[in-house]
This record gives sequence, structure tokens and C-alpha cells, in this order.
Amino acid sequence: MAHLINSDVFLAFSTYATIVVLKMIFMSFVTVYYRMSEKAFSNWEDTRRVSKDPEERKKMLQTNPNVERVRRCHQNDLENIIPFVVIGLLYALTSPDLSTALWHFRVFVGSRFIHTLTYVMAIPQPSRALSWMVGLLTTFSMAYRVLTTALFL
Amino acid sequence: MAHLINSDVFLAFSTYATIVVLKMIFMSFVTVYYRMSEKAFSNWEDTRRVSKDPEERKKMLQTNPNVERVRRCHQNDLENIIPFVVIGLLYALTSPDLSTALWHFRVFVGSRFIHTLTYVMAIPQPSRALSWMVGLLTTFSMAYRVLTTALFL
Amino acid sequence: MAHLINSDVFLAFSTYATIVVLKMIFMSFVTVYYRMSEKAFSNWEDTRRVSKDPEERKKMLQTNPNVERVRRCHQNDLENIIPFVVIGLLYALTSPDLSTALWHFRVFVGSRFIHTLTYVMAIPQPSRALSWMVGLLTTFSMAYRVLTTALFL
Repeated sequence: MAHLINSDVFLAFSTYATIVVLKMIFMSFVTVYYRMSEKAFSNWEDTRRVSKDPEERKKMLQTNPNVERVRRCHQNDLENIIPFVVIGLLYALTSPDLSTALWHFRVFVGSRFIHTLTYVMAIPQPSRALSWMVGLLTTFSMAYRVLTTALFL
Repeated sequence: MAHLINSDVFLAFSTYATIVVLKMIFMSFVTVYYRMSEKAFSNWEDTRRVSKDPEERKKMLQTNPNVERVRRCHQNDLENIIPFVVIGLLYALTSPDLSTALWHFRVFVGSRFIHTLTYVMAIPQPSRALSWMVGLLTTFSMAYRVLTTALFL
Repeated sequence: MAHLINSDVFLAFSTYATIVVLKMIFMSFVTVYYRMSEKAFSNWEDTRRVSKDPEERKKMLQTNPNVERVRRCHQNDLENIIPFVVIGLLYALTSPDLSTALWHFRVFVGSRFIHTLTYVMAIPQPSRALSWMVGLLTTFSMAYRVLTTALFL
């Protein structure tokens, strides 16, 4: 396992990990946007910005399909992007071939942008399932290299 | 990008990341506390500790507003503290100025403690929104440095 | 704090972190399996694979106790395995004794496999609570070493 973290592979990992984590954070803003436009909140104190009438505010404590869809997309990001970051970091330290590593990072990050688009726009399946699976296969491929390079039980 | 992880910046990152992750774990205990005191569980087998009467136990399989509030707070931690840890780790490796780095870490960790207080105690907005935003701005500032220092696409 | 990431402790961390993150990803597949077998989906477009009749598809937009149980188990993984990975990484850089570190990693990973079994199979408490607590205690022990070794506020 390599000991240099100022390698090109590590720079590439830093770049793609930061981009895909920022994409994940972006889902919070999409949620806020839909909560405001659909007037659908979870907390009583959040409704105050929109109205001061208690009756109206009570109605805003509702679940909304658009909000829930964005939240599921965000949750899927947590369940897939965080494993990529963890395994990708360890993978970047195994001195992989630069070009191989770059394609792993690019394919993963690309797959997650496509996943978000297909989820938020409700594009017919299997587009979302495929983009999810492509991201996972990239992660599995990196995990395979980590385990075959660094196995120490 | 620096290659030393025994720098003061990395020590500071380790300290603040550990503190804020412990704070995140703490939410699990708050959830357990509210589940017990409000008698609101998700799993049939969990109700056994409180009662042996099947009728009573069925009633405990309920959602409770206090439990759900703590769970939303915990979820918000996952959505914000994990990005901080990932981006903060990469940031700590870009050899930032120690004092600048320390203030990024302090402001972020402080903002998350305030966020938790405002969420769990349902303090009127915009206190919670502001604490959330301050934490995000800190993360964005670190991401900006990572991307301008380490960009490798 | 050590500066070598090609140490045996770091190799061991890489191995156990990868295994336990793969276990976490595995929950996604269990969720998909239950969604298909129980015909319980969250998204309209996902029901298309199972049926083309709109009436039938509407009924599939339901919550199902088995699906929700797996999802809670996955969520508990996110709430516990990610803190382990973060704190474990920092811990591995504090040059702990190899055998001590190995036992921390083994106990944590073992506890999470047991936690998943007890959760998915609904084994009576306190088996799940205990496996959860054992994992947390391992994480706390590593956090203690990070904070006592690397404290820099």
C-alpha cells in the first residue's frame, strides 16, 4: 500500500470526492426549495416564515410527494456516495494506475449525477436502477483492489 | 497538496472531527431516551422491555413527534457532518494556514452544537436555519480550497 | 500522531473498513429483494417492472413492515459504521499497538454483523441492543485514544 498522498491519484480522488459530496449537499437545497414551494414542512417552527395564521400553518405540516422524492434521492446519495468516499480513499492509497483510477472516479461521479436526474425527474426505469448499479460496480471494483492489495485480518 | 499528516492542522482536524462525530453519535442516545420515555418504538421486539401485555405493546408501535424531531436532527447531522469530515480531511492535507484551519473547524463544530440545541428545543427560526447555513458555508470554503489546490480531473 | 499509512495497523483498518462498508452496501440489495418480493415500492416508476395495470401499480405504492425493518437496519448502519470509519481512520494514524487495534476492528465489525442478523431476523432483545452497544464502545475507545493522543483545540 502506497504511503504518498500527494500523488496524482490522490489529487484526482480529492477532486472527484469533493465534487460528488458537494452534489450530495446540493440535495439539501432542493429539499428546501420543494418544502417552500409545496408548503410542506416537518417542524412547526418552520411554517412561521410562510404564514402567521395557525390554521394555515397546521396544514403545512404535511408530507408531499415531491419533497419525499428528493429526500429519498438524498438518502440514496448517503447510502452510495459515502461508501465510495471511504473505499475510494483507501483505493487511492493502493497506488493504482492513474488512468484506471481516473476512470473509476469519473464513472462513479457521472453515474451519481445521472442517478439524481433520473430520480428527481422520475424518468422511467431502468434508467435509475442502471445508474445506481454502475456506481456500485465502480465501488466494488475499488473494494476488490483494496482487499487484494491490503488484506490484513 | 501536502503529504504530512502529523502536522498541527491534521491534529486539529482529528480533534474537531472526533468531537463532532461523537456529538452525532450522541443523537442515538437521545432517540433511545425519547423512545423509552414516550413509549414509542418501531420494532415489536423493542416493546418487550417496557411491558409484557400484547395490547399495550401494540400501542407502543407508534410514531411520536419528539422521537421524530430527534431523528430528523440526527439525519441532518448525517447530511452535514459527514460532508464536513470528508472535505475537512482533504482540506487538512492542502497545508492551509493553521489559524485559518482552526477557525474553520471551530465555527463548523460550534454551528452544529447550536443546530442541535435549536432543533431539539424547537427554538423559533431562523436560528436553526442560520446555524445550518454557517456550517455549510464553512464546508464550502474548505471545498473551494481543496478544488483550487488539488484540481485534477 | 504517526505519519505512516503503510503500517500494518493501517492495512488492517483498510481491510476491516472495506468489509464493514460492503456489509452496509449489502443492505441496499436486501431492501431491493424485499421491495420486489413484498411488492412494496416508493416510486411510481418502480412498479412498472412488476405490473402494467395502473390499479395494481397504485397498490404497490405501500409501506411494508419487512421493507421498513431492513431500511431501519440500513439507517442504523449509516449512524454507526460511518462514525467507526472516521474515528477508526484517525485512530489508525495514532500508532496504536497492532494487536489492540486489530481487536478493536474485529470486535466492531463482528458486532455489526450480529446487529444486522438480530435486526433482520427480529431476534428478541437485548441481543440487538447489546450488539449495537458493543460496536459503540469500540468506537468510543478509539475516540478516547485519538483525543488523548492528538488533542489540538
